[in-house]
Amino acid sequence: MNNKAPETLRFIDNRLHLIDQTRLPGRLEYVVCQEVTEVHDAIRRLVVRGAPAIGIAAAYGVCLASDEGQYSKKAALEAADFLATSRPTAVNLFWALDRMRKVIGESALDGQSLLERLIEEAELIHAEDRQMCQSIGNHGADLLSGATRVLTHCNAGSLATSVLGTALAPIYELHRRGQPIEVFADETRPLLQGSRLTAWELSAAGVPVTVLCDSAAGALLSSGNIDAVIVGSDRITAKGDVANKIGTYPLAVLANRHHVPVYVAAPTSTIDRSIDSGADIPIEQRSGEEVVHFSDRASAPEGVNVFNPAFDVTPAELVNAIITEDGVHRPPYDFQ
Amino acid sequence: MNNKAPETLRFIDNRLHLIDQTRLPGRLEYVVCQEVTEVHDAIRRLVVRGAPAIGIAAAYGVCLASDEGQYSKKAALEAADFLATSRPTAVNLFWALDRMRKVIGESALDGQSLLERLIEEAELIHAEDRQMCQSIGNHGADLLSGATRVLTHCNAGSLATSVLGTALAPIYELHRRGQPIEVFADETRPLLQGSRLTAWELSAAGVPVTVLCDSAAGALLSSGNIDAVIVGSDRITAKGDVANKIGTYPLAVLANRHHVPVYVAAPTSTIDRSIDSGADIPIEQRSGEEVVHFSDRASAPEGVNVFNPAFDVTPAELVNAIITEDGVHRPPYDFQ
Repeated sequence: MNNKAPETLRFIDNRLHLIDQTRLPGRLEYVVCQEVTEVHDAIRRLVVRGAPAIGIAAAYGVCLASDEGQYSKKAALEAADFLATSRPTAVNLFWALDRMRKVIGESALDGQSLLERLIEEAELIHAEDRQMCQSIGNHGADLLSGATRVLTHCNAGSLATSVLGTALAPIYELHRRGQPIEVFADETRPLLQGSRLTAWELSAAGVPVTVLCDSAAGALLSSGNIDAVIVGSDRITAKGDVANKIGTYPLAVLANRHHVPVYVAAPTSTIDRSIDSGADIPIEQRSGEEVVHFSDRASAPEGVNVFNPAFDVTPAELVNAIITEDGVHRPPYDFQ
Repeated sequence: MNNKAPETLRFIDNRLHLIDQTRLPGRLEYVVCQEVTEVHDAIRRLVVRGAPAIGIAAAYGVCLASDEGQYSKKAALEAADFLATSRPTAVNLFWALDRMRKVIGESALDGQSLLERLIEEAELIHAEDRQMCQSIGNHGADLLSGATRVLTHCNAGSLATSVLGTALAPIYELHRRGQPIEVFADETRPLLQGSRLTAWELSAAGVPVTVLCDSAAGALLSSGNIDAVIVGSDRITAKGDVANKIGTYPLAVLANRHHVPVYVAAPTSTIDRSIDSGADIPIEQRSGEEVVHFSDRASAPEGVNVFNPAFDVTPAELVNAIITEDGVHRPPYDFQ
């Protein structure tokens, strides 16, 4: 089991400790944030990433606000507004910040008392996430019962949440139950969250894992050796369109062609009930530098144009089930 | 135009000069081969790659055989057998070596006279390749007339042939004709032939090029901004199944879903008339090191399993046309 895995986020003595996910798998280091700007920077630079983890980090980030050394309602609200600008696609960020804003708005407290109340709320969000991951693990493990070879994309594991993950929670649960389970992890260019993070945390937990280039998923799926595809999500519309890491959509198209079920695992906080169509999800375009440099080496001629969207949208028609902490949802999706 | 591009292969004074494609785009360096083993190594290490270029290199490689310092029929045949073991998928390699073997078998010559005859044959294969590329360029340019944004995968350009390339020859020809044309180049993991080589040679020729991660091709194709997909091939069966760089099959599936035509450009020497089904094409499995290391940095935990096929097979049903030096072939394919 993964209970011994290092914790993605910890809030201790008014400091937010984050595993620096840009350093894995080479080094396990922590970034310690004492100011709101540091949390914003950590989210933007993907020190912490994964929709649920971003939400938790942002909630704690609001607790680091400062108004000339003092805590204040005004500084807390400004922090929430600022943190909301760190990344555009994952709706959990806005969901967590809205919860913090609600507490700020409804509370008669200010100063240190307000801060204590907000830390409580952030810790509640964090604790709920742990419970959510375990519930998704249970529901997903029942759904995947009998599957032995599962393909995933990016990292929707313990590093993307508080613990266990979303897409990987059912894997950890099946492993705990003693079911033989093997994971194939797309490396997930450009930032290699699959080979760097998913392979790292599964290996650490003793789950057999095989890494492949994203472009090899077609050959793998056509081989007939994959029982299911399971991924996380950054935003799910009311009708079940799914924004997730770039490359998820091709994977879903290929899986469907080869009659392999596609499962999406995410907390209900990932569902954006305000929109029906995935076309309305804002897609973050990231720097071309992520694509044309690797380590110290240029992988493309200098000055070349780059197309680097961070996410794509998988239409609901390609998604066989959406697993939330509430259970397994089947199409047609209609989240209210 | 690309006529000023450095030549991929040159045979001068009994030495084979190859652009070291493992060094691009950082450095333009040459590997100079004086022995058969050096040519074998250059093909295996992808110093020279691309089905047509491999064939030409192998033909010249036979001319480097040595029997205790002398040229001989026996050494030439041994060289041909050895070079055939360098890579398994590209049929042009075997085709070129068969042409050399035929000369060896039919000729009454031996020693230096045989060598001179074999150099003539290798130079003929090389010259035919130049003519083939120009013919594919002309046929393909007519086919792509009106297209302005084309997506390609891997490198099937001048670096993969003698000059101009196969998939890129129509692009260069359209550029020469003054038609506005823009190329989107999949980076092509694991060895990045798209971002390293295709982007490099197109930029050098003044053709606008945009690099993207392989996994972003789905988002790009679904945007409606691509007029055609064009790729090369390492082996085409009699019925039109196409082996090409890993990732071609997913691209073809996605292009078909979005009603974007898929074109394959290759010389007739790429057609393997001995087999009908792509399932019978041997697929090279390459070292996992290509995937889990980049430059000096590990991109996956040590010892992880890797699935790293070099090629996949695109069924003929997904290929809208095959462009050879003979013209444009349409389905149903039946190469005799």
